[in-house]
Amino acid sequence: MKDIQKRKDKRGIPIKEVGISEIFLPIFVSDKKNKIQQVVSRIKISTNLSPKKRGTHLSRFLEVINKYQGYNFDIAKIADILKEIKSKLKTSEANLEISFIYFIEKIAPVSKNKFLMDYRCKIIGKILENNRIFKKLEVEVPISSVCPCSKEISRIGAHNQRGVIILNVTISKFIWLEDLIDLVENEASGILYPILKRPDEKYITEKMFDNPKLVEDIVRDVAIGVKKNKRIIDFSIKCTNYESIHNHNVYAEITNRK
Amino acid sequence: MKDIQKRKDKRGIPIKEVGISEIFLPIFVSDKKNKIQQVVSRIKISTNLSPKKRGTHLSRFLEVINKYQGYNFDIAKIADILKEIKSKLKTSEANLEISFIYFIEKIAPVSKNKFLMDYRCKIIGKILENNRIFKKLEVEVPISSVCPCSKEISRIGAHNQRGVIILNVTISKFIWLEDLIDLVENEASGILYPILKRPDEKYITEKMFDNPKLVEDIVRDVAIGVKKNKRIIDFSIKCTNYESIHNHNVYAEITNRK
Amino acid sequence: MKDIQKRKDKRGIPIKEVGISEIFLPIFVSDKKNKIQQVVSRIKISTNLSPKKRGTHLSRFLEVINKYQGYNFDIAKIADILKEIKSKLKTSEANLEISFIYFIEKIAPVSKNKFLMDYRCKIIGKILENNRIFKKLEVEVPISSVCPCSKEISRIGAHNQRGVIILNVTISKFIWLEDLIDLVENEASGILYPILKRPDEKYITEKMFDNPKLVEDIVRDVAIGVKKNKRIIDFSIKCTNYESIHNHNVYAEITNRK
Amino acid sequence: MKDIQKRKDKRGIPIKEVGISEIFLPIFVSDKKNKIQQVVSRIKISTNLSPKKRGTHLSRFLEVINKYQGYNFDIAKIADILKEIKSKLKTSEANLEISFIYFIEKIAPVSKNKFLMDYRCKIIGKILENNRIFKKLEVEVPISSVCPCSKEISRIGAHNQRGVIILNVTISKFIWLEDLIDLVENEASGILYPILKRPDEKYITEKMFDNPKLVEDIVRDVAIGVKKNKRIIDFSIKCTNYESIHNHNVYAEITNRK
Repeated sequence: MKDIQKRKDKRGIPIKEVGISEIFLPIFVSDKKNKIQQVVSRIKISTNLSPKKRGTHLSRFLEVINKYQGYNFDIAKIADILKEIKSKLKTSEANLEISFIYFIEKIAPVSKNKFLMDYRCKIIGKILENNRIFKKLEVEVPISSVCPCSKEISRIGAHNQRGVIILNVTISKFIWLEDLIDLVENEASGILYPILKRPDEKYITEKMFDNPKLVEDIVRDVAIGVKKNKRIIDFSIKCTNYESIHNHNVYAEITNRK
Repeated sequence: MKDIQKRKDKRGIPIKEVGISEIFLPIFVSDKKNKIQQVVSRIKISTNLSPKKRGTHLSRFLEVINKYQGYNFDIAKIADILKEIKSKLKTSEANLEISFIYFIEKIAPVSKNKFLMDYRCKIIGKILENNRIFKKLEVEVPISSVCPCSKEISRIGAHNQRGVIILNVTISKFIWLEDLIDLVENEASGILYPILKRPDEKYITEKMFDNPKLVEDIVRDVAIGVKKNKRIIDFSIKCTNYESIHNHNVYAEITNRK
Repeated sequence: MKDIQKRKDKRGIPIKEVGISEIFLPIFVSDKKNKIQQVVSRIKISTNLSPKKRGTHLSRFLEVINKYQGYNFDIAKIADILKEIKSKLKTSEANLEISFIYFIEKIAPVSKNKFLMDYRCKIIGKILENNRIFKKLEVEVPISSVCPCSKEISRIGAHNQRGVIILNVTISKFIWLEDLIDLVENEASGILYPILKRPDEKYITEKMFDNPKLVEDIVRDVAIGVKKNKRIIDFSIKCTNYESIHNHNVYAEITNRK
Repeated sequence: MKDIQKRKDKRGIPIKEVGISEIFLPIFVSDKKNKIQQVVSRIKISTNLSPKKRGTHLSRFLEVINKYQGYNFDIAKIADILKEIKSKLKTSEANLEISFIYFIEKIAPVSKNKFLMDYRCKIIGKILENNRIFKKLEVEVPISSVCPCSKEISRIGAHNQRGVIILNVTISKFIWLEDLIDLVENEASGILYPILKRPDEKYITEKMFDNPKLVEDIVRDVAIGVKKNKRIIDFSIKCTNYESIHNHNVYAEITNRK
């Protein structure tokens, strides 16, 4: 059968990324407490394409991914996959992004009830022509914020709401997702739980109203925590608050990229 | 050219709805203050299909819709469109659903600043074989809720969050979208605004903390208001709160259908 | 601590559903080939609420769900959970909806390459006052359709596109998700695969162009298949095609409810 | 009243962006045929924040936006808004992103039927410390693609599907959205229409099957067109195909940024 993808291209235009998105697969990732966790991943995988080639062989991406089923998709394995993609597709760069819901057991502060809490996470890798590999982790952490301005001026209460912090870091060495999530949760007005009894609710409400923070405070405080971690090369932090008195969202973003 | 749609069908299976979704068009709707408002609508239109016919003529739906461009898509016009669809496509039933963002000028409670606020709304119509027409309106209203349980037990504050109420009503006569939205907003702990200065924030925060409500309270209080309106034949009310201390949503729903 | 939820309510308004949505948990479901499959579920759980009670105890929903972790969430277990919810919350009705991505190994038609394919599925249960339990399954199956009208009139080709069929059935006895998915895939112009080599592509392309179907044909042919299964009490089928020549979607829906 | 935002900050951390997202407003944009078009916009607006300041004054963003209601939000006006934001909030940078559905009258190729077609567009602006202003336009164009590989190897047909091309350009001078959309549509296998009669369907189907293109071909051919426009300083092009034989998407991206 003829193979159109193999043909030479005369347009002289390099392609930055060509690949596949919306691949879904159950995979394993590293879990701090239980060693390993099975997750359902959404995968995006691509390479660059030389200006001389007309097309890429997309089924090879899946063949490579398929080989790693059953293995732990940790940062070390991501490097192996990127090298194999680059070699199998004869390109100079390759990219891989794996998104999944990750579960961590959360203990309610007073009742000590336990329940799994869901966090959206990503493992991202890129291999360059010189074989240097960039590894990124991303965690999306739901939080609550109490507005210090509203607290200061109001006779009672203060507007408070759910928000989300997205922390994306380039790392030099392995970091637990749990540690990144902890780092973020420590800096919000309050954190979210899957299950709470009334004594827990009382504790959490009082704690967050004693700890009001602007969206600007939250991203700055997370940045201070992130900067202390020597395994983090560079980062971006974005916090979005779903304002309970406004019909719009408020957000702040700090970027510290090399 | 051959016309496959016209062919007879021998499978003997009636189709409840066959039609088109995700049509986008700028249209006009009735506005209580400004008489008329231009909105961007997302339209779904369909008919039933007799077990004897193989297919419908989908382009005719668009031809009918197109004729009404420039007109006001109010409840009266919806009836005209449904009758024309039914006649043009020679079916016994027809359905039309028009979704759009509707803007109402909102005045901040203290500063009196004005700004447009966006509400997601729907106009829905159905014509039956006996030519009886059912007309529905739906409004989606963002609100805020303060938890009375959390307020009762906590030394300071109470968890509070954004929520959304969806009110869907079958009507016998014309009702302003503004009146349905008012009816809903009156029963939440607090309402959302597009623009607020600090004195407004103070006023709204205190008002909502003086008015804590469970999700169950909110849907019941909206139901009491809805029942007073003689133009409303039946209804459903759903309130969803994006909990600021839980990583899940809490919802309540009342249905009163004839 | 005071318990506001327990208070009596004087508004006299029953609530159809009050509960929690967007709970995420890893659970197990029955797998035809591998006995059991771990999936990531999104759970919605609720009860009705008597007009005499002010509120429900939401944390109890999570306590019940939590007990069943590690068990297989099959239709039998759903019945147990519903009964326990009803009893623990002292209500007359309870509802449970579990959504997840389910994986089935798919074999390419010519190369015989294997890869997991993802299907969105739901298990839905409802218990009534008389303890009768309704059990539903829903499968969402991506398909491809070739337009017979376009094929008939064109010198070359025919417009063809991805679509999705949602089949929702009320069942009297256990049915495999695999069997429902098979039933749907058999009636499309063509089915989708995760991995294909060129000989597979040739085979699939020719097969679907030899089997053109209108959206009306597809839902009718699925209905014929569904009606043959004696374990299915009632059903709805909806097919939506993401038209490759129109900027809107075309859909058809058959409902056969008792 | 106390003003927490005005306080000095000692953390020494600059914030890249702090602002508001999900503001919805009806605005006017320039229309090549009708001079002006009313659209419903979703607005994101932000500034940077000096490490010395604790917070920004978010309501001022809305005050500035509100002043421009009734005006045409073209590239010239975007520059005015950015300057005013920067001055009112006393910051060194400001950002504005306006997203909307834009309508263009489309004429069917044979029947000459006319109907409005919807395109998702963005106008994006950024002002720097030196007052230099960057202006970007983005258009999202639905297209159809016929696979040349599948056509080459199959006895009949070829897999064909809907896709979408997102073209984002930095411009030195005003460009019509219509011209950017034209540029993109010219390079796909086929384009989408809102309304088609059977002779149109025949024409379009044959034209696209005579013009099969890989996703790699499409982005390259759009790039050639973009490079000819002297008003475009730099660009990115991404094409995603919703494969009709695969349950994943295929994409290609070219970036040419200065």
